[in-house]
Amino acid sequence: MADTWKALAAEKKNRQKEAIPQQWLIDAPGDEVLDVTGVPEACGLLSELEVEITNTGVGVLLERLARGVWSSVAVTTAFYKRAIVAQQVTNCLTEIFVDQALARAAELDEHLKSTGKIVGPMHGLPISLKDQISMKGLETTMGYTSWIGKYAERNAVLVDILLRAGAVPFVRTNIPQTLMWGETLNHIFGRTVNPFNRALTSGGSSGGEGALIALKGSPLGVGSDIGGSIRIPSGFCGLYGLRPSYGRVPYAGAANSMEGQDSIHSVLGPMSASVSGVRVFMQAVAAGAPWRYDPLAVRQKWDERAYGLEEHGGGGRMCFGIMWDDGVVVPHPPITRGLEITRKALVAAGHEVIDWQPLKHAEIEVAVAGIWNAGCGQDFRNATAATGEPIISSMLPSAPEGVPAEEDHPGSSAWELWQLQRQKRDLRQAYLDHWEKTKSDTHTGRPVDAIIAPIAPYAAPPHGMNRYTAYTSVWNGLDYPAMTFPVSSVDPAIDSTRPAHSFLGKHDESNYKLYDPKTFENAPVGLQLVGRTLEEEAVIGMTEVVDAAIKKFLGAEGTLPDLKPRM
Amino acid sequence: MADTWKALAAEKKNRQKEAIPQQWLIDAPGDEVLDVTGVPEACGLLSELEVEITNTGVGVLLERLARGVWSSVAVTTAFYKRAIVAQQVTNCLTEIFVDQALARAAELDEHLKSTGKIVGPMHGLPISLKDQISMKGLETTMGYTSWIGKYAERNAVLVDILLRAGAVPFVRTNIPQTLMWGETLNHIFGRTVNPFNRALTSGGSSGGEGALIALKGSPLGVGSDIGGSIRIPSGFCGLYGLRPSYGRVPYAGAANSMEGQDSIHSVLGPMSASVSGVRVFMQAVAAGAPWRYDPLAVRQKWDERAYGLEEHGGGGRMCFGIMWDDGVVVPHPPITRGLEITRKALVAAGHEVIDWQPLKHAEIEVAVAGIWNAGCGQDFRNATAATGEPIISSMLPSAPEGVPAEEDHPGSSAWELWQLQRQKRDLRQAYLDHWEKTKSDTHTGRPVDAIIAPIAPYAAPPHGMNRYTAYTSVWNGLDYPAMTFPVSSVDPAIDSTRPAHSFLGKHDESNYKLYDPKTFENAPVGLQLVGRTLEEEAVIGMTEVVDAAIKKFLGAEGTLPDLKPRM
Repeated sequence: MADTWKALAAEKKNRQKEAIPQQWLIDAPGDEVLDVTGVPEACGLLSELEVEITNTGVGVLLERLARGVWSSVAVTTAFYKRAIVAQQVTNCLTEIFVDQALARAAELDEHLKSTGKIVGPMHGLPISLKDQISMKGLETTMGYTSWIGKYAERNAVLVDILLRAGAVPFVRTNIPQTLMWGETLNHIFGRTVNPFNRALTSGGSSGGEGALIALKGSPLGVGSDIGGSIRIPSGFCGLYGLRPSYGRVPYAGAANSMEGQDSIHSVLGPMSASVSGVRVFMQAVAAGAPWRYDPLAVRQKWDERAYGLEEHGGGGRMCFGIMWDDGVVVPHPPITRGLEITRKALVAAGHEVIDWQPLKHAEIEVAVAGIWNAGCGQDFRNATAATGEPIISSMLPSAPEGVPAEEDHPGSSAWELWQLQRQKRDLRQAYLDHWEKTKSDTHTGRPVDAIIAPIAPYAAPPHGMNRYTAYTSVWNGLDYPAMTFPVSSVDPAIDSTRPAHSFLGKHDESNYKLYDPKTFENAPVGLQLVGRTLEEEAVIGMTEVVDAAIKKFLGAEGTLPDLKPRM
Repeated sequence: MADTWKALAAEKKNRQKEAIPQQWLIDAPGDEVLDVTGVPEACGLLSELEVEITNTGVGVLLERLARGVWSSVAVTTAFYKRAIVAQQVTNCLTEIFVDQALARAAELDEHLKSTGKIVGPMHGLPISLKDQISMKGLETTMGYTSWIGKYAERNAVLVDILLRAGAVPFVRTNIPQTLMWGETLNHIFGRTVNPFNRALTSGGSSGGEGALIALKGSPLGVGSDIGGSIRIPSGFCGLYGLRPSYGRVPYAGAANSMEGQDSIHSVLGPMSASVSGVRVFMQAVAAGAPWRYDPLAVRQKWDERAYGLEEHGGGGRMCFGIMWDDGVVVPHPPITRGLEITRKALVAAGHEVIDWQPLKHAEIEVAVAGIWNAGCGQDFRNATAATGEPIISSMLPSAPEGVPAEEDHPGSSAWELWQLQRQKRDLRQAYLDHWEKTKSDTHTGRPVDAIIAPIAPYAAPPHGMNRYTAYTSVWNGLDYPAMTFPVSSVDPAIDSTRPAHSFLGKHDESNYKLYDPKTFENAPVGLQLVGRTLEEEAVIGMTEVVDAAIKKFLGAEGTLPDLKPRM
């Protein structure tokens, strides 16, 4: 039995290697090289034009593809080569299908040439997909050895919508076993590492996307987020990533864990190194009328007036609430510095900024975890039982192989689950009332327009150490949309250790002790902007305002985030 | 213990009686009088003007209230008197609070007089509320003796929105114990009967609303619907009733059974004898921005273009699918006649009509029931345990007192519940695909615009006999909005028994045997129009089209439904 799963994993991993064109293999740096962000451009595989293409933001890429300045084959080839480089230095991919993607790109080029028209708003754009987002004819293993050989009979609904929009799905990306970890490791594909510092995690569960996009091996990717799985890797890898409200992006036809869990849902959403990528994706998906294909998709078109911040003073003076900590764990110095940069940038741009008082975040976390734990143990056992693959009990590099999941999560009765769900509802009510009441704290005549909060109490931590995910999961519990944006990166010269404070509890104390500037060196510092349920357009619009304010304040230029500016 | 709950019930029932102004007591007809629809106008309690007011549809009422032609005190008094008559002949009320309602009406009159402006779109309109919809300072018993003395500390969110819109909540209405029956009977308030034939049920669980509104004791009421509880009493009592999609009408702050059950939700919605009542209610609620007060309310404004049938050919030629049966139980002759009237009326109005093929309705019913049964037993036991009140095991008049609920619904594990929820999701996917595919069956270039279906396989049956609710619960399982409309009523002279057909199963056979024209005499015949998730505006717009076509076809006139026309 033990041999079964190991042999299966080795065979699949070998097939993955064989899918890589030999001429795209590089002389990869040794493990002692931690920062590999320069490798794609230094390794010599990409031409000067391919470097230019892959350094271009989504908005400009689409404009050049639509005008035929760059063909989809040229753009797809450029990103594919860079993705394969990314794979060799961070282990970020699962399914690789070069010929299929290039054939699709060629069709789009031919269409544009013969008709003079683009197929849709994403014409010719390569897009990467988290492994669970099934594509007809390809395997969907989700990192489970028992799922090897499961070839999808149809596309996920989202894939069909992206295809109709003209996109070119071109790689699938790595995830953790069970999808329920904030890092990326499984028995088939192994571990994905952070390109800014390979001793650190790229985050998870969409950690393959995080590493890939950070290396500009994809202009736009799709992740999923049930407790932070889009935002954690986006934050740890310096990206823009949106966790939409439930139902805004169709999930139908994608694989998932804990299927049938109807209370705190996983959602799909975009990740990109360019702020325009998030908007383009959400517009294209809404234009594809997902509610016609996915019964759980909300009937809600893209609302241009909401994006224009109609309900937020038309984008004029807004009031942001900054959450310095969640009342449970105080963030490390680089995160606090990121919040301070953002505060100053917003004030400089003429906005009001007040402190956000977190409400019952610890209680929300208890309800969220309780709901998942009600049945997840059985789910994980079922997915691994066929091959005897152990359930990964820790993401630590030295962790022992699986402990019995039964002991971790014995599960609960349906009635007990309902009580947890009722508690969650009551907490959502309390948080909504709390937010509405901030109207009396602002000078805009409105409640706080958005919350700006850490994504985690740390920048990307060492492997196995991403253990406190309540900074993201709280918004899943509340079903609030949240979008990440990069602010800075860890600089040991300025992000010194602070003197110990009066600890809020044991999580806070262990988090304090985790910090050491040298360990986190070069890790990106990102934050998230949090809005109200089903307010995706406004969240994107406000994040663009915040992003522009930060760039202006720091004096940065260009469409892609430059993580180097410090203050 | 046995005495405890009986004494509590008697004391509460006595307080209810004392809340009725003595001068509003009538000389009520004896039990042998089955049709009591003529009593309100014949009993002499209402003045000529009060009869006129209470016979007026919601649209015209609001217009006259806004112009001050009729004061809110006059309108509220008229409906209150008629409601108290309804109570005396059908037992439809729970909470009675005359002074409070009239004081509110007087305030509104004063406001209009002093400012010349109405408070909101429902200015001065009396509105009845199902018992569970809490109002500050009033008891919410839900028919449980253990809840006697539970005085609400705040209004349900919906009540606040209705108050801001200018409405006058004036009575609360009867429900069945547990809310999970399609009839209306509990140990405190007893049984509500059908005013068209008191040997028949008014339906449930919003059966108090059904009887009250049918007697024009309220122009507009609010019910709730988890498996048909708005549509069944609307159908059995000849009313328009809308089961909105989940989240469209705020539920926060209302009492409920099975709280925390997050999969097939109860929803609130309007019931009215006038077709305009449903639209007015939905417009006013959306205008009240419920998402600012209820975290589970969908952020979706009233969409006037959708109401104008923008996505349904602009209200021009549409294609309706008629579901003659659900593949499990064949409806009785009056229901089939109602479908046939509707078909002919729509064809006469220039629309296309095709047969709707039901898909897996039996499987959907199994999933729906399984999800509720996963935890409902425990819920019911908890609500009744404190006083020893027996759980009602049958709505039959001669039924023995409660059987142990443990045996009925032992409950299941959270993981088993997730599997049922997963099945339900897959069935929703299949139904959506099925509906989309009808595009190839129509001549409109669109899939079928709406389904027209029975509400039950019978008109209002004798007490205890409403045992097959899958004609309504199927749309709850799918979360499709559905609006009822009256078509005709049972006429023994034309609704003869049909020869036995080849039965689809045991439910079908027992349903066939239940029919006897004399038993169902005078019961209203209604149908439901079913649309797509979150398409409330279009469902209302299409129902208005269907309703007008039927009225034209039958030669009926007037704003309130006349149930007499036959064909």
